[in-house]
Amino acid sequence: MNVAVVGATGAVGELMRRVLLERQFPLKSIKFLASEKSAGKQIEFACEKHTVQLIRPEAFAGVQIVLSSTPSSVSKEMSPIAARHGAIVVDNSSAWRMDPQVPLVVPEVNPEELDHIPKGIVANPNCVAIPLCVALKPLQKISRIKRIIISTYQSSSGKGAKGLADFDAQLGPWVRGESVPKPTAHRAQLAGNVVTLDWTLDPNGYTEEENKVINETHKILGDSQIGISPTCVRVPVKISHSESINVEFFEPISVEQAKAALATAPGVILMDELKGEFPQPVHATGSDHTFVGRVRQDPGNINALNLWVVADNLRKGAASNAVQVAEELIRRGIVK
Amino acid sequence: MNVAVVGATGAVGELMRRVLLERQFPLKSIKFLASEKSAGKQIEFACEKHTVQLIRPEAFAGVQIVLSSTPSSVSKEMSPIAARHGAIVVDNSSAWRMDPQVPLVVPEVNPEELDHIPKGIVANPNCVAIPLCVALKPLQKISRIKRIIISTYQSSSGKGAKGLADFDAQLGPWVRGESVPKPTAHRAQLAGNVVTLDWTLDPNGYTEEENKVINETHKILGDSQIGISPTCVRVPVKISHSESINVEFFEPISVEQAKAALATAPGVILMDELKGEFPQPVHATGSDHTFVGRVRQDPGNINALNLWVVADNLRKGAASNAVQVAEELIRRGIVK
Repeated sequence: MNVAVVGATGAVGELMRRVLLERQFPLKSIKFLASEKSAGKQIEFACEKHTVQLIRPEAFAGVQIVLSSTPSSVSKEMSPIAARHGAIVVDNSSAWRMDPQVPLVVPEVNPEELDHIPKGIVANPNCVAIPLCVALKPLQKISRIKRIIISTYQSSSGKGAKGLADFDAQLGPWVRGESVPKPTAHRAQLAGNVVTLDWTLDPNGYTEEENKVINETHKILGDSQIGISPTCVRVPVKISHSESINVEFFEPISVEQAKAALATAPGVILMDELKGEFPQPVHATGSDHTFVGRVRQDPGNINALNLWVVADNLRKGAASNAVQVAEELIRRGIVK
Repeated sequence: MNVAVVGATGAVGELMRRVLLERQFPLKSIKFLASEKSAGKQIEFACEKHTVQLIRPEAFAGVQIVLSSTPSSVSKEMSPIAARHGAIVVDNSSAWRMDPQVPLVVPEVNPEELDHIPKGIVANPNCVAIPLCVALKPLQKISRIKRIIISTYQSSSGKGAKGLADFDAQLGPWVRGESVPKPTAHRAQLAGNVVTLDWTLDPNGYTEEENKVINETHKILGDSQIGISPTCVRVPVKISHSESINVEFFEPISVEQAKAALATAPGVILMDELKGEFPQPVHATGSDHTFVGRVRQDPGNINALNLWVVADNLRKGAASNAVQVAEELIRRGIVK
């Protein structure tokens, strides 16, 4: 495959490069594109030096698959241009996710959506929605979902390299008991704190992030009737998002049924609390899997279960999911 | 009042001493009791030196109010002895909480329970249940509660001084990128991590802490029919617990109604998300109030609301609530 990585020098772009190598993605050629700030930089990839090129229309000539992780504004402009050059763009921004002509794909959940890509663009979902859907899809196959109540424990790296830099700058002084510098990327002190308004508040009282979880989960699970109630929260963790999920079905699913379905579900690692195991950010970081544990009956509702889900937000929540989408494009013969 | 502080040298006991002074509790005499390990130590209180005495039956002679924070095993033995000496014991352990003859009291919620103290013992509730009930009581007065789904973000100090020491020992190496020492109080690495099995797992698949939240909330709110579904989680924060709460009522309550009730509710500070305000551990720490914010309609259920609640687990969740119970005992003329 002839591949271009757009936004190659950002946190997710860098990880896309690593994941392509780790997963031995079938590459014929690769090029790295970025904005003016990073164009001209040297990058090493598979023991070869590459010069980062400026994102511009001509750069997409001959490219079959574009893996893109740029701000939405850049994607809105450049993704259609790349598609017009004949490439399929797998786009990690939120620019195209809710476009009805753009499939929003988690390969373990709705790969069949890739069979119809009218704009040449596939959207990579939000980093909370991806593990949520990976964990719920095997259960949705057993019974239709009525409601989802989710509270998240999201890591600093959800705000990319600048989030991590902000968090790191706070940590030293906080640990030493000194005054913590004003946050530069997060919206409040994150060291030793918990921040629920770390995103813009929309008029409905939910944050942009929470509304993404609602809308994208509806689209990925293919059921806009599910009542979804999210509370998104940033916690002082560097990488990996955790999710406390209460899911109510139209028909009851026993814990045994749920565990059996999850144990064999693609992309899921089921953890056994009786062995003292439970999903943790420190274990999930570096993995492409979604870790699911603490599967238990809701004591207040016979039709509901509680789950605890953790996944690496930079990998499964972004870079790895995009590369897996590209792999699926090849597997389905959509890109040859 | 003649007061004894039992477990005076522990994390909560130390704070009880501070809270007694801050709140100008009407003291005639005070004595400090502790186990053999701490007996004999010198303590300064209100600019006077006191020697910590060993907990033994004779020490309770003449004492009217005992503020106790000891392990359950100690309380099981000593609290009845103190009560037999004529004192009312306000006990912070979990030993007596579910005893039907022991009131479990949050002064803002169910102070009337103090009018009947058959065993001479009043129990101070769990640090998650207290702010939960302070926040929900004003809403329960409007409509009966059907279900509560709660996910917590609990601080290290929930495990007392040894929790904080463990967390502190991990933080330095973690910040420097070195290997983190094995946890000594928490059940997994807490620095840069999120730990949901930080408590013993009960046979029903819920942890001891989660079962406390269920049982104690039923008792404090006086309604054992409420379906309560908790997920308790330790986060890398030193002091103050946060709670993401979804509460379903039998009749719908509008956001405006809920905010109006919370704005005037005792012990509650309502925060306005439109001003960018939201409850945060760093703000709640040091306060005796329960901070409530992000009051919003559940998009999936017209009868449900979401709330974000934060309170200082050592103060409102333990020491301050106990002192407030003692104040209420005086106000009601139960101790004269």
